Amino acid sequence: MLSEFSLIDRFFARRASGSTYPQRAVLGIGDDCALLAPPAGEMLAISTDMLVEGRHFFPDVDPKALGHKALAVNLSDLAAMGAKPQAFTLAFSLPKADADWLSAFSDGLFDLAERHGCELVGGDTTGGPLNLCITVFGSVPPQSALRRDAAQPGDDIWVSGTLGDARASLGVQRGEWSADANDAATFRRAMELPEPRVALGLALRGVARAALDISDGLAGDLMHILERSRVNATVDADALPRSDALRRLSTDIQRRCTIAGGDDYELCFTAPPSARAEVVAAGQQARLPVTRVGTITPLDAAGAVPAISWHDASGAPLTLTLQGFDHFHAE
Amino acid sequence: MLSEFSLIDRFFARRASGSTYPQRAVLGIGDDCALLAPPAGEMLAISTDMLVEGRHFFPDVDPKALGHKALAVNLSDLAAMGAKPQAFTLAFSLPKADADWLSAFSDGLFDLAERHGCELVGGDTTGGPLNLCITVFGSVPPQSALRRDAAQPGDDIWVSGTLGDARASLGVQRGEWSADANDAATFRRAMELPEPRVALGLALRGVARAALDISDGLAGDLMHILERSRVNATVDADALPRSDALRRLSTDIQRRCTIAGGDDYELCFTAPPSARAEVVAAGQQARLPVTRVGTITPLDAAGAVPAISWHDASGAPLTLTLQGFDHFHAE
Repeated sequence: MLSEFSLIDRFFARRASGSTYPQRAVLGIGDDCALLAPPAGEMLAISTDMLVEGRHFFPDVDPKALGHKALAVNLSDLAAMGAKPQAFTLAFSLPKADADWLSAFSDGLFDLAERHGCELVGGDTTGGPLNLCITVFGSVPPQSALRRDAAQPGDDIWVSGTLGDARASLGVQRGEWSADANDAATFRRAMELPEPRVALGLALRGVARAALDISDGLAGDLMHILERSRVNATVDADALPRSDALRRLSTDIQRRCTIAGGDDYELCFTAPPSARAEVVAAGQQARLPVTRVGTITPLDAAGAVPAISWHDASGAPLTLTLQGFDHFHAE
Repeated sequence: MLSEFSLIDRFFARRASGSTYPQRAVLGIGDDCALLAPPAGEMLAISTDMLVEGRHFFPDVDPKALGHKALAVNLSDLAAMGAKPQAFTLAFSLPKADADWLSAFSDGLFDLAERHGCELVGGDTTGGPLNLCITVFGSVPPQSALRRDAAQPGDDIWVSGTLGDARASLGVQRGEWSADANDAATFRRAMELPEPRVALGLALRGVARAALDISDGLAGDLMHILERSRVNATVDADALPRSDALRRLSTDIQRRCTIAGGDDYELCFTAPPSARAEVVAAGQQARLPVTRVGTITPLDAAGAVPAISWHDASGAPLTLTLQGFDHFHAE
């Protein structure tokens, strides 16, 4: 067993201070607080996510993948804001201080952090059931931030990458459906190693209107844009981008995974039709496909509850009872 | 059972947005990120703390006290930096969404937040074993920040308030020692409702050199100043400030509680002897006693490991085997 301080030092503080990317914090790990400021004229974009064993990951998860994912889901929030990663704090509770586990976890964490120039500036460790809480800081000029409340009727609705593979992996692991070994590996990679769409978020500054990242399923998350922007949406369920692996499962499963899957960490955003060429260019710049899946429409009446109308490729309406993942929803 | 979003909205988002203090964030709860910037010329001081049931608090803790303490321990880190509270994020996992519990918890949290003008700007909630992770943001001009690495030989060592009551409460609850009902209530209040020394931290800008908050016991925490500043210290164990209630326990218990107690959340700081009047004035301004307990001394040799020399009121050396609380220490 390592003591808390040597443990932090061995796996986290040394690597944080030895990193080759420019150090953004005036004062980082080892004091009561880190000191950080955004570049002149910009603001810090701040997001926090907590991951719990048994709910967000399986107890036997590869610790390197877990280190990646814990930071990835936070960077995904920065991407959704069009913010550039700067720094993060890491608090975690662990049942025991296992050096091999921590070594692999910190590898996954720092590999991703270094790719995004995101510096570890503080943290806290304690004993307890496994729980990871990261708070991430990016920078963005406030007028360029991709907010949820900026969608307008007539906007196209876009989705990056493909949806549903992470949910397909969960289904395979739960025995809800099966897939061949290659497809199962594709699904599992999507679930364990999501790639935050930071480059796309930056490329969409000044191009997209509203944006968010899809973490709880498109159906639930798109509602957040609709509610904050006071608009409706129509979406073509058959236009939702999906992997070849997912296409080999039934249409029903494909819809379930793409619409209400969760854990996608793709961006969903709106942009005026006049910006279609710019959106496609932003996707090319970020080396990521972007797919137009629907349209923002006006509310039925001023006080109406926003809603999504789903249809298939032929335009026939679809009635969906699937919901986005809701952590405290009554069973 | 409430769904996640209505739960957040009911207890946290509405109260955050309905607060009367000035809103510091351009964009707060409800988007992918909050947007925050420090005042011109200042930096954000950032700290994160995680509290776990069974380790940092008892399962039957009063939820209102827990809400207070979860934020208080974070504000204490800002105080130790001389930073002014601005905002915080709250992530927590809960076994179940109990409305009464959440109502009391949020009362304790927001009562303290509002007293310090500290705005809730984001968060995350999930199911799981009870775990609270707060990240707090303050502002401080970087040249005024009270760092751990600024102590100099000859500096006085000061402590605010009194030490040891929280540890005394733990001892009563564990049956290690007993106290009458009044004293037990005094101890319990110290443990459950620590008051972050924010006003003192602000008053000490430009007066104190090094500072930190005592969360794991003076013996362990003072070592952090010594290690970062590359100095030694001599401390008079009998000079450590303690409550009348603690003075009614044995000298041995008093020493154990004041030196290695933990959960004190008082400030320990150093200042040159020429600043004694200013330190006392800072204490008066913050309406908090400050007590001189020792002196910073040079290291024995350039590469030596820093150490604390303890003595009693007569100057006789004390040998202490007590250690500060170390979360992963081998039993």
